[in-house]
Amino acid sequence: MNSIIASTSTVHGSSYLEYLKPELEILFNGCKSILFIPFARPGGITHEEYTEKAKQGLSFLKDTTIVGLHTFKNYTEAIQSAEAIFTGGGNTFLLTKQLHENNLLTPLREKILRGMPYLGTSAGSNICGKTISTTNDMPIVYPPSFEALGILNFNINPHYLDPDPHSTHKGETRETRILEFLNLNSTPVVGLREGSWIRIQGNSCLLKGKLNARLFIPNEKPKEIAPDFNFNTLG
Amino acid sequence: MNSIIASTSTVHGSSYLEYLKPELEILFNGCKSILFIPFARPGGITHEEYTEKAKQGLSFLKDTTIVGLHTFKNYTEAIQSAEAIFTGGGNTFLLTKQLHENNLLTPLREKILRGMPYLGTSAGSNICGKTISTTNDMPIVYPPSFEALGILNFNINPHYLDPDPHSTHKGETRETRILEFLNLNSTPVVGLREGSWIRIQGNSCLLKGKLNARLFIPNEKPKEIAPDFNFNTLG
Repeated sequence: MNSIIASTSTVHGSSYLEYLKPELEILFNGCKSILFIPFARPGGITHEEYTEKAKQGLSFLKDTTIVGLHTFKNYTEAIQSAEAIFTGGGNTFLLTKQLHENNLLTPLREKILRGMPYLGTSAGSNICGKTISTTNDMPIVYPPSFEALGILNFNINPHYLDPDPHSTHKGETRETRILEFLNLNSTPVVGLREGSWIRIQGNSCLLKGKLNARLFIPNEKPKEIAPDFNFNTLG
Repeated sequence: MNSIIASTSTVHGSSYLEYLKPELEILFNGCKSILFIPFARPGGITHEEYTEKAKQGLSFLKDTTIVGLHTFKNYTEAIQSAEAIFTGGGNTFLLTKQLHENNLLTPLREKILRGMPYLGTSAGSNICGKTISTTNDMPIVYPPSFEALGILNFNINPHYLDPDPHSTHKGETRETRILEFLNLNSTPVVGLREGSWIRIQGNSCLLKGKLNARLFIPNEKPKEIAPDFNFNTLG
């Protein structure tokens, strides 16, 4: 495999995809075309406008064209013949619903497993886990299943946030929510802070970026893992 | 109807249900027994322990017994014969899944519509809307449907939080999430801040508590509504 699974497209004080630029030059090296999946976008901008945003964010890739999946008549064929794929963020429920309803999970999974360069950010990363059950998103539509690509043998919680010790709010913290997930499920969860990503290259699957991530394993205390942590040790 | 649909069970600096005490004395006036639905609890404590917490929170009701729904063999009959019902908070997906799988939505809806005193807090309030699609909870289990009781002809967003102008976080604000819901759905949403509740008495349906709520109507700008706002004006 050859994938980048990022917590966020954008970090504070920087433009869209900017912090990932050196990594993306390597990931997409030699690609003439990248297929952009804009389906997570829940409104505000059209699929066309969202694809334009991706084009601008990737404009440093000089000889690479970005094409939106929505412009194809046959989505499955577009995925099957893609040289590289980028799934943008938005709402994970909306993205998952469309991937299921168009039967796109299997072709997308097969391409990623065969080593096609893949970039996911936020919702596009959530779908790389076993299920979308640890998304932060609001369930604005009902997908036929919470099953995801299962490229990783754990779940992702993107935009991971540490508890605010000064908060007076009574909603659950992110950690509480993930521990509740683990009470009912046996899938480990990786809380990826903004600025972190998972880099899969061949059989290697490592935490990248400057920050630690938070690892949640059933029946164990949550723990911090440092950059270059090897996710294959999760078994 | 005779219901209290509250944003939260607990406000900062106060004990479980304490801020609602004067209201609950009126709602449950004369009730010998209250059926407690503990099914939203996603672990940490058992249904028995959660029911004990509800008992303690309602201990100011001197001649009233609190009984957990989990102690009954036949849940439907327990609901049908209940004098009053309180559904506690926790995870809305988990609560909704169990209500659907045990076919409890219809009997619960019928009892509430017939005027049985009902208290919902957080997840127990979310289920009073048309769907649970505006919950803040993590989708830790997959319910057979997002449809809810539909006691209200709008959706609830409990624990409503205003955007933090100083945040550097790239996750969506609550308002953004609700506006994304409205891009894809025609159901109005009421963002209930902690300390607010909706009081239904007969044909009256009013915002209560000291705070404003935030009202989201499709194709309109979100607006603040003041205590005593009449939700029946939503049509």
